[in-house]
Amino acid sequence: MEKDPFRPIDDDARELAWRLVRTARHGALAVLLRGEPFASRIALAPADGSFLTLVSDLAPHTDALRQHPRASLMIGEPGKGDPLAHPRLTVSVAAEFIDKQDAAAYLAYQPKAKLYIGFSDFHLVRLTICDALLNGGFGKAYRMSPADLTA
Amino acid sequence: MEKDPFRPIDDDARELAWRLVRTARHGALAVLLRGEPFASRIALAPADGSFLTLVSDLAPHTDALRQHPRASLMIGEPGKGDPLAHPRLTVSVAAEFIDKQDAAAYLAYQPKAKLYIGFSDFHLVRLTICDALLNGGFGKAYRMSPADLTA
Repeated sequence: MEKDPFRPIDDDARELAWRLVRTARHGALAVLLRGEPFASRIALAPADGSFLTLVSDLAPHTDALRQHPRASLMIGEPGKGDPLAHPRLTVSVAAEFIDKQDAAAYLAYQPKAKLYIGFSDFHLVRLTICDALLNGGFGKAYRMSPADLTA
Repeated sequence: MEKDPFRPIDDDARELAWRLVRTARHGALAVLLRGEPFASRIALAPADGSFLTLVSDLAPHTDALRQHPRASLMIGEPGKGDPLAHPRLTVSVAAEFIDKQDAAAYLAYQPKAKLYIGFSDFHLVRLTICDALLNGGFGKAYRMSPADLTA
């Protein structure tokens, strides 16, 4: 028997996913680095159907995203007790390096980045959401489309 | 001019990395899933030169680790303010599915997992540390070996 671990999407699942997206200020990014997966932290600003992030040439993920723009981003912070009981969302994303004239939308969520956003080795990147996997806790997994992740 | 973003390792860096390892109870795992990077949360128990984790067949990372045991794990929680100012450690790991008779070492750190560790679709996995990248905050990056991550 093949198991289908995913539940049908309902309004509660959409609301939970949207809350995770809207409140995300950082996340764990998985990129392909010289053919292997690599995990790192990035700061985030939620945008329409995407996230904005600011990455440094000193971080391995930056060149990895240039070479292979498809990545995966996990958001949602665990609280006390079993870390797997807390909701998290993994979105698959397509990365695009964009002009820093769009920096205001990023700085609205990451005001401390004003200190370094102007440095030439920092780059603004849009991570457009391609699809999503919500894990709301044990037995509560949902596959979602970008349309499910809007208000 | 080629930039070397890494500092020489010192005792402060080793101590910080060791603290992150010792206190980690969960992390962000990056695996290779059908050729693409995939990020997800796993629960952790620190072990000697490795971490133990317990993974479910319902989670995409479990089969991904079977197909491609090389993965990347980020630990370290951000606090208030700029999320990039807080230390985190990315370790590259080799995953090995191990017998559940070693479960006691996991349950010592994850007591709530007693509720489900006996289920046949949960598997105990050892993630042996191959190398590490410590990011202690802006401009404080270090490459480390497994030997640097011991007490």
